[in-house]
Amino acid sequence: MNQAFSHIAIIGCGLIGSSILHAINRYYQQNQQAKPRLHIIDNNPAHLAQAQELKLGDDYYADAAQGVQLADFIILASPVGAYASIATQIADHIQPSALISDVGSTKQTIIAQLRAILPAHCSFIAAHPIAGTENSGPSAGFANLFDGRYVIITPDNDTPDLQLQKLTEFWQNLGAMIEIMSAPRHDKVLAITSHLPHLIAYTIVGTARNLENELDSIENNGSTPDSRDVIRFSAGGFRDFTRIAASDPIMWRDVFLHNRDAVLELLANFRNDLDFLTKAIETSDSDALEKWFTDTRIIRRQIIEEKQAGQFIATENKQKK
Amino acid sequence: MNQAFSHIAIIGCGLIGSSILHAINRYYQQNQQAKPRLHIIDNNPAHLAQAQELKLGDDYYADAAQGVQLADFIILASPVGAYASIATQIADHIQPSALISDVGSTKQTIIAQLRAILPAHCSFIAAHPIAGTENSGPSAGFANLFDGRYVIITPDNDTPDLQLQKLTEFWQNLGAMIEIMSAPRHDKVLAITSHLPHLIAYTIVGTARNLENELDSIENNGSTPDSRDVIRFSAGGFRDFTRIAASDPIMWRDVFLHNRDAVLELLANFRNDLDFLTKAIETSDSDALEKWFTDTRIIRRQIIEEKQAGQFIATENKQKK
Repeated sequence: MNQAFSHIAIIGCGLIGSSILHAINRYYQQNQQAKPRLHIIDNNPAHLAQAQELKLGDDYYADAAQGVQLADFIILASPVGAYASIATQIADHIQPSALISDVGSTKQTIIAQLRAILPAHCSFIAAHPIAGTENSGPSAGFANLFDGRYVIITPDNDTPDLQLQKLTEFWQNLGAMIEIMSAPRHDKVLAITSHLPHLIAYTIVGTARNLENELDSIENNGSTPDSRDVIRFSAGGFRDFTRIAASDPIMWRDVFLHNRDAVLELLANFRNDLDFLTKAIETSDSDALEKWFTDTRIIRRQIIEEKQAGQFIATENKQKK
Repeated sequence: MNQAFSHIAIIGCGLIGSSILHAINRYYQQNQQAKPRLHIIDNNPAHLAQAQELKLGDDYYADAAQGVQLADFIILASPVGAYASIATQIADHIQPSALISDVGSTKQTIIAQLRAILPAHCSFIAAHPIAGTENSGPSAGFANLFDGRYVIITPDNDTPDLQLQKLTEFWQNLGAMIEIMSAPRHDKVLAITSHLPHLIAYTIVGTARNLENELDSIENNGSTPDSRDVIRFSAGGFRDFTRIAASDPIMWRDVFLHNRDAVLELLANFRNDLDFLTKAIETSDSDALEKWFTDTRIIRRQIIEEKQAGQFIATENKQKK
């Protein structure tokens, strides 16, 4: 960390907060430098106890105001809906010149909120690591979550260069690649790459739940009726959606409330496209279907080329030739 | 295979056909029994040559009529849209008492088609292994694709018990679990567990493609405009949809044309649910969003308990604590 920080406070020790802590600890195991003191703040007593048991940091606080007092770097890692309340709690307790950043999935609304609450003497630079899993809580974190992943930083014209440089180096030391863009652009890009996909996954998994009872009533030619058909035969595609739809409910509730306009705009696009494909099915327009399904393969190839694809493994029967 | 078959013909050597061949070969490597002769039929010369190069079978044919002549077991493993044409080609060349089955993702329409074309002296029993990956072609297959996965068999009142038993044992020897159900029930279950998820994934990936140019025009505060944002930041959820939307276009075109009614009915359900969530976002109904997102976690837990979850691995940074 080039000695940039001597006290780091992480507010919220969930998947991302605990992964940051793992990654910081990994960095200092690999590099002979004085390790900053790590202050962990979480208002959930169970999570705080778990973080302590996992020895993720040095000091543990339920009270954010107390936890940030020594910090020259503060990271908000709670759901974005809690930012305003946290900022109000800590505003009078922040060190002069402290750098404050975050990891939230939406940027425009939270930047406006935090600028109105945080004192002028500190720098707030919003950031967002594009990484995660469907698991939540302090035990979900792991050190290499950010390796090779992007962190989007959204500075503005008032952002001090030195602070931006420190934040950039911090994330690079954790294994990430940095991308600078404006907050409006971030919110639009994330709406399509993350927020709309999650909303659609949540929708379809809900649709399946509502359907389960209905399936029991269908004539089934001798097999035992079973409301768990949707579960047992999920390997045909549905299970991948359930993974995404198992993500943290509070985090995602807040994302949709905070990036409402961009999500609603994209939803309108999605509905138009769904109308097109629905009509193609209704009219048996095989050319239209085949063309659409062929075109979508291109994006997958590009993601693989960009080394952002990952791989889905059926853990019970790992793929071997 | 308990010597049930002495000549097996596989028509269509894609992901499923080649995986069946791998799994048959694996079975006979592990069990000291006389191996049936494996006849591979594919009307795509490149695929046929590839299958031969991979030594997947014993005999290779471009002509289905010729390839099935010796077979006492024939498996249709082409896209379902090609079944009628294949059945017409082979009808006069099938051995008396041969068993014919398939691996297609839709059942009601193809059963009706095949019954009308195939001769009365052979038994057709429709089947569908619930397993696959997004990869296609003879080189995509692997021997343990079916291990621990379900194969749904949809017999009717005329299905001979002995033939049903042979088909059941065949798939069990390949590692699969058997589920018997009616064709209408199959089509309904698959519409929700597989067909609707694929349609939604195809839709959203198309929506993203259409959006890419639009993103270039957004003010971006100093970063280089880049139409590849959707690709680079896809780790936030979108990439999982691209995997599904990279599946074989011809196969999926045929699925939607053959299971149209069930898919359209479910699409109506899905739209209602999407309307509900859209309205919850529009009206900032945080309780409704949180409740929906919490309920959907239950299904994920059930799938994990049922050992059908699999695991998504970011191959570039494998998860280690």
